Amino acid sequence: MIVNKQHYRTIWPMLSAGSGRAQVAILDQTQLPHEFAIVHIANLAQMEVAIKTMQVRGAPLIGAAAAYGLALAAQEDASEEALQAAAQRLRLSRPTAVNLDWALKRMLSMLLLVPQADRASLAWSEAQAICDEDVLQNQAIGQHGLALMQQCQPKSAQVFNVLTHCNAGWLATVDVGTALAPIYAAHDAGMAVHVWVDETRPRNQGASLTAWELAQHGVPHTVISDNAGGHLMQQGLVDMVLVGADRVSGQGDVCNKIGTYLKALAAFDNGLPFYAAVPSPTIDWSVSDALSEIEIEQRHGDEVAFIQGLATNGSLQSVRLVPSGSSTANPAFDVTPARLVTGIITERGVFSPARLLDAKRA
Amino acid sequence: MIVNKQHYRTIWPMLSAGSGRAQVAILDQTQLPHEFAIVHIANLAQMEVAIKTMQVRGAPLIGAAAAYGLALAAQEDASEEALQAAAQRLRLSRPTAVNLDWALKRMLSMLLLVPQADRASLAWSEAQAICDEDVLQNQAIGQHGLALMQQCQPKSAQVFNVLTHCNAGWLATVDVGTALAPIYAAHDAGMAVHVWVDETRPRNQGASLTAWELAQHGVPHTVISDNAGGHLMQQGLVDMVLVGADRVSGQGDVCNKIGTYLKALAAFDNGLPFYAAVPSPTIDWSVSDALSEIEIEQRHGDEVAFIQGLATNGSLQSVRLVPSGSSTANPAFDVTPARLVTGIITERGVFSPARLLDAKRA
Repeated sequence: MIVNKQHYRTIWPMLSAGSGRAQVAILDQTQLPHEFAIVHIANLAQMEVAIKTMQVRGAPLIGAAAAYGLALAAQEDASEEALQAAAQRLRLSRPTAVNLDWALKRMLSMLLLVPQADRASLAWSEAQAICDEDVLQNQAIGQHGLALMQQCQPKSAQVFNVLTHCNAGWLATVDVGTALAPIYAAHDAGMAVHVWVDETRPRNQGASLTAWELAQHGVPHTVISDNAGGHLMQQGLVDMVLVGADRVSGQGDVCNKIGTYLKALAAFDNGLPFYAAVPSPTIDWSVSDALSEIEIEQRHGDEVAFIQGLATNGSLQSVRLVPSGSSTANPAFDVTPARLVTGIITERGVFSPARLLDAKRA
Repeated sequence: MIVNKQHYRTIWPMLSAGSGRAQVAILDQTQLPHEFAIVHIANLAQMEVAIKTMQVRGAPLIGAAAAYGLALAAQEDASEEALQAAAQRLRLSRPTAVNLDWALKRMLSMLLLVPQADRASLAWSEAQAICDEDVLQNQAIGQHGLALMQQCQPKSAQVFNVLTHCNAGWLATVDVGTALAPIYAAHDAGMAVHVWVDETRPRNQGASLTAWELAQHGVPHTVISDNAGGHLMQQGLVDMVLVGADRVSGQGDVCNKIGTYLKALAAFDNGLPFYAAVPSPTIDWSVSDALSEIEIEQRHGDEVAFIQGLATNGSLQSVRLVPSGSSTANPAFDVTPARLVTGIITERGVFSPARLLDAKRA
């Protein structure tokens, strides 16, 4: 995608100017939208921190970051023991994203087939392949989602209104995005599309990331509090709810950023379609009932108690929102049951929960 | 209620040390929870500003503030023309709260019956009466709500979990509160009660006000993002949703802080009771279908784009959350349709929407 007229992906390999060794460049998403900072990741520990602190976030990007993390580890020690240990560290860095586990399994199964001396170079090329496939998948998601939007009768003749939660744009992937891919495709095809952007507390990925990348691409959008979406649906100001997902279960339950479930309930109550857009590796066939089977990540309560923003002096500042005598809780994801899900948009097509198994066979 | 071991109401009359004239003291709620500041209101224009800028907020308190606003106006000019003009200014200061209109009508109908010379003193005593009645009503709401909680079978033997949205505590009223009245009554009666406090973006009245007043009273509570409530209900961690309301329609629709509708949907989806606690003047018998008949206040988008909190240097700072190239929208209230409402708790008892007319007759 384009930032300040230059094309970027969210992650890419590069050579260190100092050591001449391979490194990984990422965009530090904790600084957006106020600062556009590129960070160099030189080793496994740094990648682990980047995932944990959400400098990289978004299920597909976490998968790519984990693959590169394993490449960085292989560069140090490509023994099976070391690679398994590295994979375990990366696996524990974020518990919910299925892509992370998927990418690590794919990398390990490839690497352990070849002699130890060949593993580092194979790891770099396989991580690159994971990234390239992500981009192709997302472009296909964009086309399938665009077709859905073109079939849907908008409530207003002037504009097609999509509501999205969190960030499932190019910043959540290697490029293009998942939930935002159909929106970019529609905008680029000349369709008048407007996006209601849930700010997505506590980490505000909507206000910080989705708004920023939509603005960079010139897509009309309006940031709202997470509380507003139901009211907008009641008022006929939403045509479709379109989100990403960290995991989709085999029966079509959608595990996504906390609050998604509330928007799905409101869409259902107002007769509006609710879609999750994901690359097919995000579908976890080992899970059927996500509500009982998926562990929900509990993040630190300080993400609720404090918030970071741009102070009047131009610096990034964190301010306290909650009185110090009050405790906070911070579940990071929720589960939208399949009964509230109109369909899952994948690179292989759009599938209702009842027909989701077809996505596996396709 | 008690703050720092001293009893306060949210609004009270006082004599100006300088002029010897009657004034009104309020707590500046825009400074809470970080600063406890008492502000003196000397005239109608200052009261209008206090309501508009939400130094006083909460439907019952707005009614009391409007009554005192009219007393301040009567002190300057008690002619019918002047009082009607003052009432109109106050009426327009917040469009949603029915109590405001109710209090102004009550005041005007009393004042215009007596000679002009008697109006100012009558206005002060009538405003005081409105405040005293509010406190008595809220105490009755507390007892009716407590009985409901005692009848309800909690999911855990250890604690009764209530989820609340925005602030309908003593800060939203003259004293005691509406939605929090049953919680204080339960806590004071020795019941183990815990409150999930929605932070309630964009103005964060939950994190700023509800958390603060619960902490002052010693009631266990946890602040959560507005996105988290549905998940907590799915996990069996909520026994009851209990909110206030700015207006309840004759058929039982609940107009309350934006986002209430989403919590009502989640309560309904999880088979949990959803109650609104209001003094009976909050029921607007002139409105039947709130969705089509109530105008929703649109507040400034900067309330979404910026947030105020306590900086590390101890000062209150506003920081920007949304990139400057992105627009924002800020509907302040939404409507929860009566079909999602278990009951309305009033000072006259608890009424299901179908039996709400009995509250009028009671």
